[in-house]
Amino acid sequence: MSPMKLPVGFQASGLSSGIKESGKSDLGVIYSPYPLYWAFTSTENTLKAPCVSRNRSRFISLQSVQAVLVNSGNANCANGEQGIWDNEDMAGYAANVLSLKRVQDVLTASTGVVGKKMPIDKVKASLNKLARQMTEDSTSFSEAILTTDSQAKQVALTLDSGARIVGIAKGSGMIHPNMATMLAFVMTDAALPQETLREIWPKVVNNSFNQVTVDGDTSPNDMAILLSSHQVRANPTDFTNALLEVCAKLAQKIARDGEGATKLLTVKVTGARNELEAKNAARAVVRSPLVKAAVHGNDPNWGRILVAVGNSGAVSDMANLTIKLQSYVVYQGQSLTFDEVAVSGAMKAASEVVVEIELAAGSATATAWGCDLTAEYVRVNADYTT
Amino acid sequence: MSPMKLPVGFQASGLSSGIKESGKSDLGVIYSPYPLYWAFTSTENTLKAPCVSRNRSRFISLQSVQAVLVNSGNANCANGEQGIWDNEDMAGYAANVLSLKRVQDVLTASTGVVGKKMPIDKVKASLNKLARQMTEDSTSFSEAILTTDSQAKQVALTLDSGARIVGIAKGSGMIHPNMATMLAFVMTDAALPQETLREIWPKVVNNSFNQVTVDGDTSPNDMAILLSSHQVRANPTDFTNALLEVCAKLAQKIARDGEGATKLLTVKVTGARNELEAKNAARAVVRSPLVKAAVHGNDPNWGRILVAVGNSGAVSDMANLTIKLQSYVVYQGQSLTFDEVAVSGAMKAASEVVVEIELAAGSATATAWGCDLTAEYVRVNADYTT
Repeated sequence: MSPMKLPVGFQASGLSSGIKESGKSDLGVIYSPYPLYWAFTSTENTLKAPCVSRNRSRFISLQSVQAVLVNSGNANCANGEQGIWDNEDMAGYAANVLSLKRVQDVLTASTGVVGKKMPIDKVKASLNKLARQMTEDSTSFSEAILTTDSQAKQVALTLDSGARIVGIAKGSGMIHPNMATMLAFVMTDAALPQETLREIWPKVVNNSFNQVTVDGDTSPNDMAILLSSHQVRANPTDFTNALLEVCAKLAQKIARDGEGATKLLTVKVTGARNELEAKNAARAVVRSPLVKAAVHGNDPNWGRILVAVGNSGAVSDMANLTIKLQSYVVYQGQSLTFDEVAVSGAMKAASEVVVEIELAAGSATATAWGCDLTAEYVRVNADYTT
Repeated sequence: MSPMKLPVGFQASGLSSGIKESGKSDLGVIYSPYPLYWAFTSTENTLKAPCVSRNRSRFISLQSVQAVLVNSGNANCANGEQGIWDNEDMAGYAANVLSLKRVQDVLTASTGVVGKKMPIDKVKASLNKLARQMTEDSTSFSEAILTTDSQAKQVALTLDSGARIVGIAKGSGMIHPNMATMLAFVMTDAALPQETLREIWPKVVNNSFNQVTVDGDTSPNDMAILLSSHQVRANPTDFTNALLEVCAKLAQKIARDGEGATKLLTVKVTGARNELEAKNAARAVVRSPLVKAAVHGNDPNWGRILVAVGNSGAVSDMANLTIKLQSYVVYQGQSLTFDEVAVSGAMKAASEVVVEIELAAGSATATAWGCDLTAEYVRVNADYTT
């Protein structure tokens, strides 16, 4: 992992606290001496881990924060009252070590095993070291938040004004005994009002992280946090575009790194009646196990794509639809003759399979990202490892 | 396949017409000399094959029918105008051969490859023989409607009054180059008014066929038809119960025969606030790839079940939930200690894994059926076979 310098006003670190039996890095912190403006989105699952519920309450208060403590290896979810207290303790210990006045200045995030008590003593024992090791480089933090990800995921971008955005995420691969989680932390020094950030963030998340599907399950720990130290001037439009670019790239990294995945599947829908239908159609295709399996087999199976679009409800007349696979037209209103061997070859040769669907019903567009479905996915997730 | 006698007033047959290159049986007919009362449900996919659209129009007319012509091997879907004419021709030829006065007396159903022209001449050339071979046994018909099913699916039941119900279905396994289809034809001689049948049928379908998930995709050709020759007296309540039993058994056969499946997964939800939420919760669990993979690995992974229920929106507080796996309590409000090896062993030993979920939020219940997710599913569906 190459180093990546954080935006002005941020420090971070990560280390192994012993939560993971493997001894891999599992505890990370983001800190700023400035009161950070922030925006937040989280899982739609009605079951929510204590860290998600706590951050949501913090979010409503409109108050700034100064740190985020993240652990991997234990989701601290479905642990009853004990889980709520352990989560609160994590924030409290971190506030203490970082000399913050209020426990509320610390957000928390946990990912990993569900239903296992958080080893809070291990976290506590490691916090001093974690704080001492903080630097202006994001690498050790990006490694501390991983679970089944095969690699850390970081994207950085600099605006013309000099303001920077650094995004760090972990993916939604799944492993015994539980679901994993999508976590994203995006830091910026762009000086924009908190209300602007909070207006932009859900839109950007909807067009990036929320358009990723690995297996259709949503974890009770999913969250995406935008943090700003507001130290460098920035134009709101430039910032929004750059933020979307960072998050879309992170989303693609997550999709490509889905468990057992060998290919990125990108689905671009155009000509929808409205944005919601465009999004639903794109997501329906990347989510379909049949489409995902066909992508794995380099099978230009437009029938499955058509059916998935039909299931999304975004189109009522298949006579207007056009489907392209790796730029080849494979369906236009009805089946047509195309060079199946050539299309299959183009799918096989690429590490990204691109499906383009023109609905010809309006002008709304959306893109979604996923991955192929492989026997390896089944093996990883069927494995019983007591 | 053991013979199964049809209800009074029904004849059926099936043969190989050459639609399938394998030479397997691919054309079947159900016929009655009586005007049949009927009820009908079909796919929610907004893309609909011509056979589905035509039957829907017929259904609205309230008129009786006398025959159903079914082919497998070609879905006659996404074939544009040509597909609509070919479907109409199939009905017309069948009406002619069966000496029916009206083309409208024939319903049609097609399942198989999408986007390939129906070989209508082969169908036409086989219809005389098909009509000549009609008998009061359902076996040859039940074999003619199969695609990737590993075996024919028939269930029969006799009411106390002597009225009979015979149900025949094909499953929702999927294969290159396309999706397959759930088809169900249930025949009865119970003498009940058509309006009663039409009131009962969607409820029964909602509690049986619509609670089956193999991979979450819905075919544009799915349909379920109830046909009655109204020749034998029957009590409406007895009939409804028996009909549900027949359809639930067919649904289980379909789930158990999902592609690559090695186990039936049965999910029973109790204590839901309402029936819709109960159904959604049960379906969310049988649909989750993570749960399905865990079932394949005999992994008592209650965390994935919990998350799937959470995704369904049927519960807002995980503190009230109880989850049983093969009758063992594995979650009750929070994680608890249970004998993982014993539960895993109980899963491994059985051909059916039963998940029971008590939501403790109301009194509504629902059951859904699915199957495990196996590497074989991926292999079958990734295979490119030009």
